[in-house]
Amino acid sequence: MTSSPESACAIGVDLGGTKIETALVNANGDIAEKRRTPTEAKQGPDHVVAIIASMVRTHYLRDARHPVGTIGVGVAGQVDPVTGVVRRAPNLDWLDFPFRERLEAALGLPVAVLNDVQAIAYGECRRGVGQGIKDLVCLFAGTGVGGGVVIGGELVRGVSGNAGEIGHMTIEQDGIPCTCGNRGCLETFVGGWAIALRAQKRAAAEPHTALLRLAGGKAAGITAKLVGQAAAQGDALARALVEETGAALGVGLAAIANALNPELLILGGGIVEGLPGLVEIAERELRRRALAAALKPLRVVRSKLGADAGVIGAALFARETRGRKIAGVAP
Amino acid sequence: MTSSPESACAIGVDLGGTKIETALVNANGDIAEKRRTPTEAKQGPDHVVAIIASMVRTHYLRDARHPVGTIGVGVAGQVDPVTGVVRRAPNLDWLDFPFRERLEAALGLPVAVLNDVQAIAYGECRRGVGQGIKDLVCLFAGTGVGGGVVIGGELVRGVSGNAGEIGHMTIEQDGIPCTCGNRGCLETFVGGWAIALRAQKRAAAEPHTALLRLAGGKAAGITAKLVGQAAAQGDALARALVEETGAALGVGLAAIANALNPELLILGGGIVEGLPGLVEIAERELRRRALAAALKPLRVVRSKLGADAGVIGAALFARETRGRKIAGVAP
Repeated sequence: MTSSPESACAIGVDLGGTKIETALVNANGDIAEKRRTPTEAKQGPDHVVAIIASMVRTHYLRDARHPVGTIGVGVAGQVDPVTGVVRRAPNLDWLDFPFRERLEAALGLPVAVLNDVQAIAYGECRRGVGQGIKDLVCLFAGTGVGGGVVIGGELVRGVSGNAGEIGHMTIEQDGIPCTCGNRGCLETFVGGWAIALRAQKRAAAEPHTALLRLAGGKAAGITAKLVGQAAAQGDALARALVEETGAALGVGLAAIANALNPELLILGGGIVEGLPGLVEIAERELRRRALAAALKPLRVVRSKLGADAGVIGAALFARETRGRKIAGVAP
Repeated sequence: MTSSPESACAIGVDLGGTKIETALVNANGDIAEKRRTPTEAKQGPDHVVAIIASMVRTHYLRDARHPVGTIGVGVAGQVDPVTGVVRRAPNLDWLDFPFRERLEAALGLPVAVLNDVQAIAYGECRRGVGQGIKDLVCLFAGTGVGGGVVIGGELVRGVSGNAGEIGHMTIEQDGIPCTCGNRGCLETFVGGWAIALRAQKRAAAEPHTALLRLAGGKAAGITAKLVGQAAAQGDALARALVEETGAALGVGLAAIANALNPELLILGGGIVEGLPGLVEIAERELRRRALAAALKPLRVVRSKLGADAGVIGAALFARETRGRKIAGVAP
């Protein structure tokens, strides 16, 4: 059975360093079926291609009720927007791997490859909290801080596929070193690793905090997650840490609001979900700092699709850019 | 004589607080004729509309060799991208003035209104140093610091017309107050007012510098321009100030490179032209800070069209968006 591109499903893949998530996504962006398997990145990129191809073949391509037209993959790394080559994916240990070419060869279907947070942003824009909005920015804070930018309804990929790295905007010129080699990046305040680092230092000097007790008395055991838990219990140190984190996040959001004047800022990720009141503190600081003209139409919201945003976004991106590619080619 | 929209000229207007510049711009972006007159902003917005209408009628609309199809105006202020209302233009003392509507009524021609630095960015993109490039960011540093963003070949105006305010990205969380109400903005390091302020403070403590002599021995008389002159003469204080300014500019450029991953950064304005070595210092700092993936394809260049960029950009923007508006309307 064949089908028109309009009715065909797309497969969305979220390829991370530890797990691969796949989903069959229909034209409305609804997930018909979702699966997960370990990445086994240590066995090399060709093995990962084989895992994805096998999952797709076994679970999605044999179902005549849901014909598949295309596959979109969000990769935790930097993807060349023209060739689909994964330039650098530290969590996968990939360097200049021709991922799109290999996956297309393995499956005989058109594949689109993009950065994983760009896929999340696209998903939120097309089917999530940003539906119908033309200009929006997503910021996802987990261990690191990533983002995605949508302008005029289109995903901004950047000339080398790197657009949306808003976690690495400097907000403190001489701040602490970041994982990226820069100093004082937004991530050095809001990334999970940075919150933990700050909490560990401060807890060592304040031995009677609930935060330290939650970590079994060992400062080195404090994580950003424990900071969130201690703050929820009313611990003063943890609450101060959340306050600082939110204020720094607001500084970054103000920079984005001024530079791009979006209609919507979407916040998500483990840090946003785990630190109580973070979004409210960040929005307060944003409103204190950004230009009035940029603030008037601006809303700050939480991600709606949650963990599904990536697969939905990757699938819809593949669907929609595939149609465009065909439309752009002379018959 | 009538003409097709393809061959008609457009008029570009650069409307600032002190002067109005107008130019007749042909389809290639070449200036056929350029004029300048004082703004007389104190006499109110309707008077300014009358001045522009009179200039346009007298000098451009009577010439049958150059039929005019449309007018574009870059305004030093915030412009509603949908209605052409000037929301706020402090240098003109305008608030919520329906500029497009009034100028169209006065001239009987379609008018496009946009922010002046957005017009410059568009001019550089279409006919200047950015010609043929899809993703670029312009930064203009004068007394203040403004910018313009082009993504996918389209000018990013922002939901309320405010996109491109990259001078008000915070690079120092607890930095000095900015004119915009925020703290530690890029402008508080790179804007002419901020350079002068820093220079005045430092010169007062170092009475034997050439910089202080150039200002007639009075620290309060030091301007950013004098800093540039003293630096060119080898004055140590002035050179240190240029170095700091360039480093801060590089911090801001790195944030832009990481967030948007453009192919080109275009720098212009009196500060960029007046401080010797500034671009080189900024680029060095940018390359030290930004992600390798964002840097690889990136070039940093100086503005090419100079003072003409604004009128050329406004004219071409009017031309090109007019065509699009017509194309988007069903017959």
